[in-house]
Amino acid sequence: MESLYVIKIGGNIVDNPTLLTACLQSFAKVKGQVILVHGGGKLATSIATSMGVEQKMVQGRRITDEATLKIVTMVYAGYINKNIVAQLQAEGLDAIGLSGVDGNLILAHKRINAAIDFGFVGDIDQINTPLLLQLLSNNSRLVIAPITHDGHGQLLNTNADTIAQSIATSLAKTYQVHLIYGFEKEGVLSDIDNPSSVILQIDNAAYNNLKEKKVIFEGMIPKIDNAFSALENGVQSVIIGKAERLNELIQGTAGTTIKL
Amino acid sequence: MESLYVIKIGGNIVDNPTLLTACLQSFAKVKGQVILVHGGGKLATSIATSMGVEQKMVQGRRITDEATLKIVTMVYAGYINKNIVAQLQAEGLDAIGLSGVDGNLILAHKRINAAIDFGFVGDIDQINTPLLLQLLSNNSRLVIAPITHDGHGQLLNTNADTIAQSIATSLAKTYQVHLIYGFEKEGVLSDIDNPSSVILQIDNAAYNNLKEKKVIFEGMIPKIDNAFSALENGVQSVIIGKAERLNELIQGTAGTTIKL
Repeated sequence: MESLYVIKIGGNIVDNPTLLTACLQSFAKVKGQVILVHGGGKLATSIATSMGVEQKMVQGRRITDEATLKIVTMVYAGYINKNIVAQLQAEGLDAIGLSGVDGNLILAHKRINAAIDFGFVGDIDQINTPLLLQLLSNNSRLVIAPITHDGHGQLLNTNADTIAQSIATSLAKTYQVHLIYGFEKEGVLSDIDNPSSVILQIDNAAYNNLKEKKVIFEGMIPKIDNAFSALENGVQSVIIGKAERLNELIQGTAGTTIKL
Repeated sequence: MESLYVIKIGGNIVDNPTLLTACLQSFAKVKGQVILVHGGGKLATSIATSMGVEQKMVQGRRITDEATLKIVTMVYAGYINKNIVAQLQAEGLDAIGLSGVDGNLILAHKRINAAIDFGFVGDIDQINTPLLLQLLSNNSRLVIAPITHDGHGQLLNTNADTIAQSIATSLAKTYQVHLIYGFEKEGVLSDIDNPSSVILQIDNAAYNNLKEKKVIFEGMIPKIDNAFSALENGVQSVIIGKAERLNELIQGTAGTTIKL
């Protein structure tokens, strides 16, 4: 099977033009099929501030009220998505930017009955896998913004990590899928105060051991739980590391590789 | 040859949720292939105002400085485009929203040496016709935002009327193309003060006659000149009229039809 890389880049990359350009130049060199899922970053917050729309964060997540939904749709599906695509085109790649609305790519429903009302936040119901397969068969590089819809005209703000995982899983029958989470650190660290203490590989046994010893804790736990969930659904490997070192992450010479 | 309708809707439709919904419901009923090109509307101006970005208009056109380019990219390619696509999906259509950047759909260059410096405004060099043909062959309804790029990473604001005309012309060898300009009036009027004085059909001879008599003047002249240019390049007919009466425009029972 052909390899496919689903690469999620977070807000810290999107916010930093130098890092973003470095990351997209690596991205342009990846051999095989690639899907890029990007998060939001601080731009939505700064635009909300300049528009006088108050941003409420609960547990590190944005509450998406109606005004905020408008802003994140503009920023994620408009500004960030089209600038990334324009940069990839400048690198000679045939990139296409899509949101979850386009071609009914990501159908979701508004989260209800949650302990915290996050507003217009969508949980994914279905990925339009045939559309992805068709676009990939034309060798298009897909750039996906984390805006979904409910099929009844309502746009929804959706977690980019989850979109990357769902897309990776949906394509695992057709491609040998590798899911890469690019973030601000070199990988999962054995000593949080030592940036070079990257754990190269984590399997199920090692994970349980690391959790027990509290080497892995807090925010990293749901991230790695998600990684194992993807692996259990057919994804070949999940790699966590610095987004600007994409090629090394792919080759396994940087970052943390998570395997079953 | 199969029929294809390239439909441009202007800002007055985009700004008015009731008119927009009516227009999109008509759009959903069109038989044959359809491409929708949308303009901007007042939303970009109101967002610019709330962000403290001064908008300069010269000869009725927006000067696109760097801050304004950011705003129109967000509003046109983000908010407006994705909301239209979500509404079409709710009507059961397989719609995909694209800007001119996506898949290198519309390559343009920044206008230079013009009498007025309109800033980051793009003049079209090339339409990616193979991409359009391929997407149309999947029966996707395409919704196109008037943001283009120069192939070197620079986004550009581009006139939606011109995009519609260029796309219509680029597909005229493969489809029987009809170009429809939806605007706020019923069509070209023989008496500007009488909204029901629609001229049903204008050919070259009638056009010259109407210009001579000053029935057609000012802003309508470049619009009709553009229409004739499209017709001379293989487009079958150009129809100008109220966007919310789309089906009647297509059937020729409303609006003004321009033919060679």
